[in-house]
Amino acid sequence: MIPLLEESRGLGRDLQRILRPDQISFLSPDRLSYGRDSSSKSILWARSREIKYPPDAVVWPESAEEVARVLAFANARGIPVIPFGGGSGVCGGTWALRGGIALDLKRMDRIVKIDAAEMNVRVQSGINGEIFERELNRRGFTLGHFPSSIYVATVGGYLACRSAGQFSSQYGKIEDMVEAVEVVLADGEILRLGTVADSPGVLDAKELFVGSEGTLGVLTEATLKVHPQPETDSYLGFSFPTLEAGWEAIRGLLQAEVFPCVARLYDKLDSRIAASHRNQKAGVSIMKSLGGALHPLAHFVKDRSLKLALKRPRWLQRALDALPGDCLLILGFQGLKALVPAQAALAARICAEHQGKALGEGPGRHWLKNRYSVNYKLSPLFDEGYFADTMEVAATWKHLPKLYRAVREAIGEHALVMAHFSHAYPEGCSIYFTFIGHRESEEASEKLYDRIWREALAACVAAGGTISHHHGVGVLKAAFMPQEWGEAMAWLKKVKRRLDPANILNPGKLGFET
Amino acid sequence: MIPLLEESRGLGRDLQRILRPDQISFLSPDRLSYGRDSSSKSILWARSREIKYPPDAVVWPESAEEVARVLAFANARGIPVIPFGGGSGVCGGTWALRGGIALDLKRMDRIVKIDAAEMNVRVQSGINGEIFERELNRRGFTLGHFPSSIYVATVGGYLACRSAGQFSSQYGKIEDMVEAVEVVLADGEILRLGTVADSPGVLDAKELFVGSEGTLGVLTEATLKVHPQPETDSYLGFSFPTLEAGWEAIRGLLQAEVFPCVARLYDKLDSRIAASHRNQKAGVSIMKSLGGALHPLAHFVKDRSLKLALKRPRWLQRALDALPGDCLLILGFQGLKALVPAQAALAARICAEHQGKALGEGPGRHWLKNRYSVNYKLSPLFDEGYFADTMEVAATWKHLPKLYRAVREAIGEHALVMAHFSHAYPEGCSIYFTFIGHRESEEASEKLYDRIWREALAACVAAGGTISHHHGVGVLKAAFMPQEWGEAMAWLKKVKRRLDPANILNPGKLGFET
Repeated sequence: MIPLLEESRGLGRDLQRILRPDQISFLSPDRLSYGRDSSSKSILWARSREIKYPPDAVVWPESAEEVARVLAFANARGIPVIPFGGGSGVCGGTWALRGGIALDLKRMDRIVKIDAAEMNVRVQSGINGEIFERELNRRGFTLGHFPSSIYVATVGGYLACRSAGQFSSQYGKIEDMVEAVEVVLADGEILRLGTVADSPGVLDAKELFVGSEGTLGVLTEATLKVHPQPETDSYLGFSFPTLEAGWEAIRGLLQAEVFPCVARLYDKLDSRIAASHRNQKAGVSIMKSLGGALHPLAHFVKDRSLKLALKRPRWLQRALDALPGDCLLILGFQGLKALVPAQAALAARICAEHQGKALGEGPGRHWLKNRYSVNYKLSPLFDEGYFADTMEVAATWKHLPKLYRAVREAIGEHALVMAHFSHAYPEGCSIYFTFIGHRESEEASEKLYDRIWREALAACVAAGGTISHHHGVGVLKAAFMPQEWGEAMAWLKKVKRRLDPANILNPGKLGFET
Repeated sequence: MIPLLEESRGLGRDLQRILRPDQISFLSPDRLSYGRDSSSKSILWARSREIKYPPDAVVWPESAEEVARVLAFANARGIPVIPFGGGSGVCGGTWALRGGIALDLKRMDRIVKIDAAEMNVRVQSGINGEIFERELNRRGFTLGHFPSSIYVATVGGYLACRSAGQFSSQYGKIEDMVEAVEVVLADGEILRLGTVADSPGVLDAKELFVGSEGTLGVLTEATLKVHPQPETDSYLGFSFPTLEAGWEAIRGLLQAEVFPCVARLYDKLDSRIAASHRNQKAGVSIMKSLGGALHPLAHFVKDRSLKLALKRPRWLQRALDALPGDCLLILGFQGLKALVPAQAALAARICAEHQGKALGEGPGRHWLKNRYSVNYKLSPLFDEGYFADTMEVAATWKHLPKLYRAVREAIGEHALVMAHFSHAYPEGCSIYFTFIGHRESEEASEKLYDRIWREALAACVAAGGTISHHHGVGVLKAAFMPQEWGEAMAWLKKVKRRLDPANILNPGKLGFET
C-alpha cells in the first residue's frame, strides 16, 4: 500500500458526497496505473519498481457536471486534479507531481451527434481514438486523424497536447479540426466556446484551452470537422542521394500547393531500418531491423556487440554514416479519383527534379499497413537492457538543416540516433528523432537519458527550433518553455494564475509552477 | 472647434513627452475624420452634420515601442485608446464612445520581411491592403486575401475583426493565415505570440487577440502565410431555378472536398441586379441596376416611384418575388494547370446534378473585373435620399434556409432586401444581405435603420445564426453578443477586466462596457 498524502485523508468521505462509490478508487493498483504514462521514464521507473508520482485517488466522472463538482471541491480544498485519457502520453503530462486526484475521462466516451449536414461530430473527450474513427467510418466519414497512438489515446488527449496524425499534411493537426469545445474551469464553471459555422467574427477563446494540457481547464466535449472517406489513394516511393535533396522535394511540393496526405522522409539510418523491415516478415523487432540495417557491420554489431558499440555511440554513428545509402521518401495522396492521379504525377515530376529515384508503390503500401506497429516496439528494447525514446521537434525550412544537425549531434554523443521527417507544412517541417542507448543499470540509463533530453532540447532551441510538435510539453520539456515563449511566458503564467488561482489544474506541466 | 472632454485638457503637453509634435493632433478636422468610419450610421450622421463620437486627440505612432508608451500613459490616466486603421469598418468599431485617443497605425506600414523559404511575410499592421498585395505580387506571391475594402483597409483592420476575402473558400479567413503576432497590452507590455513552424505543441494564445477589435491589446505586427501566384484560373457560371438548388450545389461541392477559390450565389433579386449590371457599361449606378432589375415593373418603379414603393417594401418585395427568374452562381478555381481543369469539370458535374444550367465564363469574369466596385456604390444612394446597408450573418447548412427566410422577413418589413452567399465552408455559409430603404429625413432614416438592425439580428439569433461573419461586432452588433456567446460572455468579460482593468482599450466594442 502506498501511503496517502496528509491532505488526502478524508478524501474518500468527501468524494463520496459527489460521486458514487464505483466512481472512486484509492486502491494501490489503480494509483500505480495512473501514476505513469507511456514515457520512457515511466518505463524505466516501472522496471526499477518505482512509480514516482502516483495520484492519491482516481475518479471516473460520467458527465461535465460531475467533472465540475470534482473541480469545485478540489479547488476549495487546494487538491491537484490531473485529467487522464488513454495514458499514451510520452512527456509526463499526467504524472501527479503533487499527488491529488487523477480524473479519468474514459467513461465520457459518447458520440453525441454525427451531423452529415454540417460535416461535423460532437463527441465526449474520453472516447478512444480507434473506436471513434471506426464509428465514423461506419457512417461514411473519417476524422482524418491517425496518430500512431490511435489504439490507446483519447480525443481529450489529442486536444490536450495538440496531437498530429500521420495524414496531417492533408487534414491538419487536431487543433485545425476543432469547431467548438466544452471546458470545465478550475472553479467548476462549464464554458461552451466556439460558434456556429466556424466563422465567428470575434476572437477565438477556445484556442486558449486546446493544447493547454489540462492546466487551464478540463475539456469534456468537442465538435470536430469530419471528411468524406477518400474515393481513392496513391502511394509513391522515392530514394534520394541526400537528406537535403529529399526535403527540398517536399518543400517544393508543398510550396507549389500540391498537398499529399502523407510525406515521410527517412534519414539514411532510418531508411535502412525501414528497408530492412520491409524485407522481413511483419512483427520483426527493432533489434532485428537494426541488425539488418547494420548488416555491413554485422561481424561486430550482433545483438550483444551492439551494447558494446553503444558505449561509443559517436564512433558507431560515424561508421554508419560512412556507409553508402539513400534516403527514402514515401508520399501518399488520397481523395477524389479525378484529382489524385494528377497530384501524384505532379509529385513525381517535382521529386525527379530533386534527384528522386522512383521506387514504385511498395514502400508506401508497406508503411500504410504497418503504420501503428512501431509504437509497441520501444518497450521490448528495455527488456533487452537498452533504453530508447523519440523526440519530435520542428522548425521552418530555413532552420531545418541546422536543427537536424544540432539535435543529432547532441543525442549522438550518448546514443545511436536516426530521424524521419513526417509532418511537413509550406512553412516548415517537424523532425522525429529516435534514439537507442545502453547502460548497465536502470539508474545509470535514466541519468544518461535525462542528460540526452537536456542537451538535445538546448540544441534545438539554439538552432531556432520549437521544442514540441505534437507530443506536448508535459514535464519532460517544461524547462524549455521560457526559451520557447520568451517574454510571453511571464504573461502566460499570469493568465494561468488568474484562471486557476489555487493551482489545482495539472500543476507543474507546460512550464507552470508545481 | 469641438470642445475637448475635461480630462483631455493638458493631454497635448503630456503626449508631447512621448511623441513628436507632428505625431499628435487636436485639430477639429482630424478629430472629425477619426470620429467616423464607413458605416451607414456614420454616413447618416455626416449628412446631418453631426459626428457623434470624435476622439479628443489623434496620434500617429511609428513603432511598437511608441504604441507601448501611449498605452502605458493612457492606462495610468484612464484615457480610452481607439486603434485606427483605414477607417473602412462598417460596425462602429472605431467610434470614440468616451472620447480619448485615436491611435492611427498607418505610419507603421513596413513590410519587415518576405521570406520565400518559409512562405510567409512579417508586416506591420498599418499597411494598406492593396499596396501590400501588390508588393507581394511583385515578388511572385499572393496573400490570397481580397476583401472588397482592400483599397482602404489595413492589415491591422483585417486582423482586428477577422476579415474574410473574396477567395476565402481557398485561402481561408485572415485568422487562418496568421502565424505570429506582436501585440501591445493595456499596460504597455509588448508580447510576441506564435512560434516557429506554425506547429507549437502548446496552446495558441494569439487567437485571443486576433478578432478582439483592439479591446484586449493593440496588434502592431503579424507574420502571415503567403502563397505562390496561381498558374491559371477558371470561372464557371450557372443558373439555378431556386436558391435551395444553388446552395445544395455549393454544399455538395465543398463536402466532396472540391474547393473553389470563390463560390457566389445570388438570390433572385440580387441575380437580376448582377445580370443588369453585366448588360450595361461599367460604372453603372445601383439605382440604374435596380431600374433594370425591376424592368417588368418599370412603369411604376422609375427612380422617383421607387421611393414611393419603398413606403410599402413588403408589397414591392412580394411583387418582385412573383416574377420569374433564376439564381446566379459564380464559381472560380485557381491554382495549378494540372488540377484546375479537373476541379472545374467536377464542379460542372455537381452543379448539373442540382439543376444548374451552365452559363459559361462570362458572369464570373465580369464579377472578377468589377469585384471591388460595389463598395463605393452605397454612399451615392444616400445622396438620392435613400439609406442602405449590408449585413453579413452565417449559419451551418442546416440552419441556412431558416436564417435566410427569417432575416429577409425581418428586414423586408422596412426595406427592399436582397442577398448573396459568398463565403462557403464544408460546415456552413455566410449570407450577405443588402437592403435599401427610404424615409424623408436623416433622423427618420436613422430611426428606421436602427430598428432594422435590431429586428434582423434578433431574427438571426433566433434562427440559429451567428451575428457576424467578417465585419466584426463593433457597436452595431454589440447588444447581441450575450446571445451569441451564452454563458461564456460573463467569462469573456472577466478576461477583459483582467487584461485591461482601467478599461482603456477601445471601450464599448464587442459587447464590453463603455
